[in-house]
Amino acid sequence: MTILIRGGTVVNADREFKADVLCDNGKIIAVGDNLEAPAGAEIIDAGGLYVMPGGIDPHTHMQLPFMGTVTQDDFFTGTAAGLAGGTTSIIDFVIPNPQQSLMEAFNIWRSWAEKSAGDYSFHVAVTWWDDSVHADMGKLVNEHGVNSFKHFMAYKNAIMADDEILVKSFSRALELGAIPTVHAENGELVYVLQQELMKKGMTGPQSHPLSRPPMVEGEAAQRAIAIANVLNTPLYIVHVSCQESLDAITRARAHGQRVFGEVLAGHLVVDDSVYKNPDFAQSAGHVMSPPFRSSHHQEALWQGLQGGNLHTTATDHCTFCAAQKAAGKDDFTKIPNGCGGVEERMMVLWDAGVNTGRLTPSEFVKVTSANCAQIFNIYPRKGVITEGADADIVLWDVNGTKTLSAKTQFSKGDFNVFEGRTVKGIPTHTISGGKLVFKEGDLRAEMGAGRYIKRPSFSPMFHALNRMRA
Amino acid sequence: MTILIRGGTVVNADREFKADVLCDNGKIIAVGDNLEAPAGAEIIDAGGLYVMPGGIDPHTHMQLPFMGTVTQDDFFTGTAAGLAGGTTSIIDFVIPNPQQSLMEAFNIWRSWAEKSAGDYSFHVAVTWWDDSVHADMGKLVNEHGVNSFKHFMAYKNAIMADDEILVKSFSRALELGAIPTVHAENGELVYVLQQELMKKGMTGPQSHPLSRPPMVEGEAAQRAIAIANVLNTPLYIVHVSCQESLDAITRARAHGQRVFGEVLAGHLVVDDSVYKNPDFAQSAGHVMSPPFRSSHHQEALWQGLQGGNLHTTATDHCTFCAAQKAAGKDDFTKIPNGCGGVEERMMVLWDAGVNTGRLTPSEFVKVTSANCAQIFNIYPRKGVITEGADADIVLWDVNGTKTLSAKTQFSKGDFNVFEGRTVKGIPTHTISGGKLVFKEGDLRAEMGAGRYIKRPSFSPMFHALNRMRA
Amino acid sequence: MTILIRGGTVVNADREFKADVLCDNGKIIAVGDNLEAPAGAEIIDAGGLYVMPGGIDPHTHMQLPFMGTVTQDDFFTGTAAGLAGGTTSIIDFVIPNPQQSLMEAFNIWRSWAEKSAGDYSFHVAVTWWDDSVHADMGKLVNEHGVNSFKHFMAYKNAIMADDEILVKSFSRALELGAIPTVHAENGELVYVLQQELMKKGMTGPQSHPLSRPPMVEGEAAQRAIAIANVLNTPLYIVHVSCQESLDAITRARAHGQRVFGEVLAGHLVVDDSVYKNPDFAQSAGHVMSPPFRSSHHQEALWQGLQGGNLHTTATDHCTFCAAQKAAGKDDFTKIPNGCGGVEERMMVLWDAGVNTGRLTPSEFVKVTSANCAQIFNIYPRKGVITEGADADIVLWDVNGTKTLSAKTQFSKGDFNVFEGRTVKGIPTHTISGGKLVFKEGDLRAEMGAGRYIKRPSFSPMFHALNRMRA
Amino acid sequence: MTILIRGGTVVNADREFKADVLCDNGKIIAVGDNLEAPAGAEIIDAGGLYVMPGGIDPHTHMQLPFMGTVTQDDFFTGTAAGLAGGTTSIIDFVIPNPQQSLMEAFNIWRSWAEKSAGDYSFHVAVTWWDDSVHADMGKLVNEHGVNSFKHFMAYKNAIMADDEILVKSFSRALELGAIPTVHAENGELVYVLQQELMKKGMTGPQSHPLSRPPMVEGEAAQRAIAIANVLNTPLYIVHVSCQESLDAITRARAHGQRVFGEVLAGHLVVDDSVYKNPDFAQSAGHVMSPPFRSSHHQEALWQGLQGGNLHTTATDHCTFCAAQKAAGKDDFTKIPNGCGGVEERMMVLWDAGVNTGRLTPSEFVKVTSANCAQIFNIYPRKGVITEGADADIVLWDVNGTKTLSAKTQFSKGDFNVFEGRTVKGIPTHTISGGKLVFKEGDLRAEMGAGRYIKRPSFSPMFHALNRMRA
Repeated sequence: MTILIRGGTVVNADREFKADVLCDNGKIIAVGDNLEAPAGAEIIDAGGLYVMPGGIDPHTHMQLPFMGTVTQDDFFTGTAAGLAGGTTSIIDFVIPNPQQSLMEAFNIWRSWAEKSAGDYSFHVAVTWWDDSVHADMGKLVNEHGVNSFKHFMAYKNAIMADDEILVKSFSRALELGAIPTVHAENGELVYVLQQELMKKGMTGPQSHPLSRPPMVEGEAAQRAIAIANVLNTPLYIVHVSCQESLDAITRARAHGQRVFGEVLAGHLVVDDSVYKNPDFAQSAGHVMSPPFRSSHHQEALWQGLQGGNLHTTATDHCTFCAAQKAAGKDDFTKIPNGCGGVEERMMVLWDAGVNTGRLTPSEFVKVTSANCAQIFNIYPRKGVITEGADADIVLWDVNGTKTLSAKTQFSKGDFNVFEGRTVKGIPTHTISGGKLVFKEGDLRAEMGAGRYIKRPSFSPMFHALNRMRA
Repeated sequence: MTILIRGGTVVNADREFKADVLCDNGKIIAVGDNLEAPAGAEIIDAGGLYVMPGGIDPHTHMQLPFMGTVTQDDFFTGTAAGLAGGTTSIIDFVIPNPQQSLMEAFNIWRSWAEKSAGDYSFHVAVTWWDDSVHADMGKLVNEHGVNSFKHFMAYKNAIMADDEILVKSFSRALELGAIPTVHAENGELVYVLQQELMKKGMTGPQSHPLSRPPMVEGEAAQRAIAIANVLNTPLYIVHVSCQESLDAITRARAHGQRVFGEVLAGHLVVDDSVYKNPDFAQSAGHVMSPPFRSSHHQEALWQGLQGGNLHTTATDHCTFCAAQKAAGKDDFTKIPNGCGGVEERMMVLWDAGVNTGRLTPSEFVKVTSANCAQIFNIYPRKGVITEGADADIVLWDVNGTKTLSAKTQFSKGDFNVFEGRTVKGIPTHTISGGKLVFKEGDLRAEMGAGRYIKRPSFSPMFHALNRMRA
Repeated sequence: MTILIRGGTVVNADREFKADVLCDNGKIIAVGDNLEAPAGAEIIDAGGLYVMPGGIDPHTHMQLPFMGTVTQDDFFTGTAAGLAGGTTSIIDFVIPNPQQSLMEAFNIWRSWAEKSAGDYSFHVAVTWWDDSVHADMGKLVNEHGVNSFKHFMAYKNAIMADDEILVKSFSRALELGAIPTVHAENGELVYVLQQELMKKGMTGPQSHPLSRPPMVEGEAAQRAIAIANVLNTPLYIVHVSCQESLDAITRARAHGQRVFGEVLAGHLVVDDSVYKNPDFAQSAGHVMSPPFRSSHHQEALWQGLQGGNLHTTATDHCTFCAAQKAAGKDDFTKIPNGCGGVEERMMVLWDAGVNTGRLTPSEFVKVTSANCAQIFNIYPRKGVITEGADADIVLWDVNGTKTLSAKTQFSKGDFNVFEGRTVKGIPTHTISGGKLVFKEGDLRAEMGAGRYIKRPSFSPMFHALNRMRA
Repeated sequence: MTILIRGGTVVNADREFKADVLCDNGKIIAVGDNLEAPAGAEIIDAGGLYVMPGGIDPHTHMQLPFMGTVTQDDFFTGTAAGLAGGTTSIIDFVIPNPQQSLMEAFNIWRSWAEKSAGDYSFHVAVTWWDDSVHADMGKLVNEHGVNSFKHFMAYKNAIMADDEILVKSFSRALELGAIPTVHAENGELVYVLQQELMKKGMTGPQSHPLSRPPMVEGEAAQRAIAIANVLNTPLYIVHVSCQESLDAITRARAHGQRVFGEVLAGHLVVDDSVYKNPDFAQSAGHVMSPPFRSSHHQEALWQGLQGGNLHTTATDHCTFCAAQKAAGKDDFTKIPNGCGGVEERMMVLWDAGVNTGRLTPSEFVKVTSANCAQIFNIYPRKGVITEGADADIVLWDVNGTKTLSAKTQFSKGDFNVFEGRTVKGIPTHTISGGKLVFKEGDLRAEMGAGRYIKRPSFSPMFHALNRMRA
């Protein structure tokens, strides 16, 4: 399939410029003025539109198994919803049970993901430790294109990684040229606070944020940063939701440490008043970890993005329906954690970020795709409109508006944390792997069209870190 | 002239990649694999070399008039020395006397610069205020390609801008889409400290750093940042030399403010022990403002570059010979302030920055050219190896070594602040405006070959700032 | 007059303890268990009450001349109102006009203050500079018991002190053993913002806070701190109202600098929503500088008190009636700046500070009297219940409640920024100079009973500063 | 025994004043001018001397069992050495082995301490957890006068407390009105670094500081602070040795959290160059944890004391002789950790703190006794010269000098970390429990004269914390 995008303004992380973009055979083969349309090419008129790299969502949980059931969005519907929102790639998570082989879990997730409509890759979680984990990490990096490992510092008595696991896994990742990532919440404190709240009879979703105050997140972020600092590894912190953890990152970066922060679209625009809704479906629908925060944290997160202390935007897309959320009717600790967003992320970020002057369009590209592609070493294949890159492209109408709602979303499920929000700045066309998969509301996602993206180890910063150690 | 650079590794701010680079008629016309050499093209074998954008030094004072004399390097020798070090563009300063018309001063500097061997542009200093200054700022931006104005917060009773001038000039710059820049030192405090030291009979160069302690710089940086914050203008702080001013920038950026910091190669690697040298020529030779600092400031400055709180590297190249420095023999306040570096900047930065693992090669490009080009809105004409850019290119041999010395420098003058330092990582070829002007030690700089670079107003961040105000 | 306070709990800055307190001839002559009542002594039963040092308000403007009129409270009514609230001493301000002799102004204020009912002292403002100012500062310190000088960094074209005055006056104060104090707001920025707002037709009180944003205060605080740091003087910053200036203090103190911060009762509990009141009398009634701030600043100020980065609580008591405020009906810049509080300060601080657990009773004493007495070197004459101290004492009923209101206040004027606030924790008796001047709502203030308090120069910290310089 | 100290200058935390001090029967019974000497009273002429509260060293390990041997100083010689240096009280540590009953350990330590020459008290370490620990903590607080519990965050596989223990013990302490304290070092990181260094063959004392870098301490401090913050407990951090942990405290205090920091005399004046000494006895003699740090940390610690972010000074007195240190000849991890100082602390602190102008004499009293007495709730029995206080007093000659040395110390052992340092400002007389125990070099310590000091629970800040929770 050959597509010529004509007359748009290309936006890359480093600049905006008028240019046509020619795609063929899944790749961008030319970017320039007045490109000729090859015979048979589909021509898209991008006059007045921005032409940007397709978004990458580095944090999703499609088809996540949960207590005998599974999240609403599988890899097909989830990635398809992403395409409808301009997101052409996701990085999902392989989460082995403690004692489960990493390779076994990886293979299971790979098989589930085969039906993806968009490109995908996997972070692999290290939830326990023995020699096999050490060995499997090597295999995953060297043979399977995994270059990042995830560690949950929360979820005591389940998948929590204690300091010993963190130290061992970070060290191993470093020698493999892979980047450690953490979910930063102190699991011990969450556990104790949950117990206290339940003991006091505070069993509703209102207790969820009380059991995970910002300091709990700040502590874990600081601890992971300290470990990375001492071991001289890079570090990526997922879903930074509050001033406290952002401050830890900001301090570390100010001292030159290679720490990266991810922020969720939801945390940027939704505040913790949602938990006060007496309607269980509403408040439980917003239960995710870390929870939504009070508004001053949102302002801090925007400032983190603006100042370069936060680098990527994600969603932690993990959709449960009301019936599933109801499992925690009498015990907020049993409400399945998770909210959606893969479809809305870029619109929400444009509307609240670019329209307000917080971000330039190039900065929008940085935080929706380019930075992610660089950190996880798939740049310039992803994250930039340039000759040779994958033809993953979104066309953007800065004047288009849309009201976000569970009723009209492509994503499965009956809930939308952005319900009722009208955004200005929306995708009109999405091209994924060189194919036009979304056009003005018409989603043409194809099951299985997505490809697994191998991510090479040893991005350039590892060489710098090695020189530093030498 | 057509040049094909073959077999090198192109380093841009966003990535490294193997590619040939073809230059013709002053421009890069192709970047790609296995490019064909046009007939008559000069072919440069870049095997094993890095191919990087020519450096931009955003802070030089060539041919600066001083008490009836002038600095050693004029625009020809100074830009030529730059070419020998891989720096293909400079931004120099037009400094009107108080009451002198900005346009008049600008025209004088333009005429002086015509003999430049490399490309050049000008920041224009606002050293006083009346309606003509307001009008001339508009003319300079709209007709002459100036998009930055400089303010000296030091030099009381001379060119110092007080708060009233700062506020008026920053406001005017904002409406013109130009960026204010400041030399951040509290002139009142410097003045008092100088007087006190002289009164105590401490007349030697040893007193120079004592008269300009870090807090004096930190205060002024913070004040300029506050003014920019209140007026919602961007801000660029020249020659950040210490923790205190860096901290002010870091705090502002962490709050999302668009503040940029420049650091001098000298401040990164030379410490204040130089002022203790009893040999007047030696200690006076290092007199510049801000002065060299103790070593913990140097570590902080490197961390600022690494963490993205400092953005550009410069030199404040301003060379006086021993005879000129001797004017301050009995009064350190009369020692002409200034040191060289335009020739050595990139080598020093590679050696102390990349070899040590503090910076990746791409980060080196960011801080030697790309960031500067973006901040001052001449990107992608400068600061990137890409089709359509100016053919300003340096080829870099990471294994080459050189011992820096006044004896062997191309720059005029009898002094070198990097005297005796052996660096690893040196330029082998420099191409400026498509011409090979330096080849393995052979400098072929041509008087008058440099072009004046007009810098457009309203870089993308101004549109974001405008949306923020709306 | 002899008074025995029996059975109370004495609260000093260092501890609480049960003890009787015997006062005679204006002094505390014994503190101990089961003291015998001398013949004729008035016995006050303090069972269940706290017995604390009388409050010191280090920031009042009684009888301040303003455009041919004068504030509502003169030195008698103002100090009397203080007594009704447990405050037995004030430090007011002598504010010479530029070009007016400091001694002349001092003598005028001294004469006005003769009718005070409570003890008083004076900070003297340095609003201009020449040799006579230098000389008068010496006279004031050495002959008249002044040990602090005030500098207004705001009020351009009026009493604003620029950097030159600050540097000269701080230096002079240091050699005299007196502490410089500043009103920290950047006058140039305030001036420009005021003009801009007026130009836009935003002439109402709503514009007042917009013309004095927190950064304007933060900048000036940081500048004063930098000047004090370079000159090695101590510094006291009056009415710290926001995070930005508090942060500047906190940073300086963390580096060991001797900087002290004062906070107003009003800034701790009133937020900036008051300026949105469409009733001019209401919004103008709250016009003071710095203005009331948004709630996150209040939380920060409390934390500053708790953590020891703020040291004293004051009021800037300066009462204008509605008719006076009306001078700014069409131009917010002409609304006389000032609000009351000398009567309510201690109650508000107890209620919002001690009842909430932010402060212990001893910490309450620190921030209402003891710290002030130490900083301004009148300790232990003031600020502690101990043998030999002045008999300035307040008895406190932690269970008593009162609703604050202009209708019931002793202070003159028709406005109260704490209007309608019910506080728990109130004074039942106030003893001033050994006399019972307030008893359960009955105010027995006596015109002229207050004494001028000479404050000695060279408090202990000056000796440390001198050793540091040596 | 009755003692009249005549003609000295009393220095308390709040002020200095000329007064005589009369002691009788172990107590101070009068402080005032021209006190009459009772019959039989010993009169000490304190003309020209400072009269200060006897020092309290809140961190000692006398008679600590170690691998079948014991530290050089037992409770008699150690407390006697303290008396020779003006320190009249210590707080030592009961350290149960994991699984050992707290009460059992407490009783053992109590019996060892009976021979003390000066007063003593005990922190009790929580090194493990079960219901008996919970119960014993109650018993210790309610029946035995313990109001502080210690937690080692280092020493993996030995006495390290993990997050679960910290959370449980902090919570328990809070309900008992006792303050948790921590040794802040991340034990996991220390363990890994030790193993790595040993694997590389770096077995000497030079590796000791490398195995415990500042970040390891900063992390643990921040973690303990976060836990205390979430549980709303106060916190006391022992031996803060570096910028990183101090910064964590400073940040917490700036947010109003009740966190206290202790610093060792050694960390204030000795730097890490000591570990480079090739003489094993010398470098091993300095092995303690945290290790001595580079000089910028020392400057930071002094600033912490000056700014009120550090509160107490201690020594971690724990003396091993060369033969004991030799246990780690081939493995630095086996060198017994510990250095002396109880005798020198006050002299070192005066010389380096007061003589330099960093501290006033009153601030010296704060950090050598008063703050400690307040935090651990034995004020005003200890830490102040006032009627009713224990007669623990040191007379100080600011002009006296002494050269510190193992050869002349009263403390046992063959090593002195202050070896060769000449201090100015020394004790001339020490009175302990009303007896003159040290006079101009003559130590008259009496075995068993020291008393066990019960420390009451629920100091005033606990009431504030409770109000905060309410």
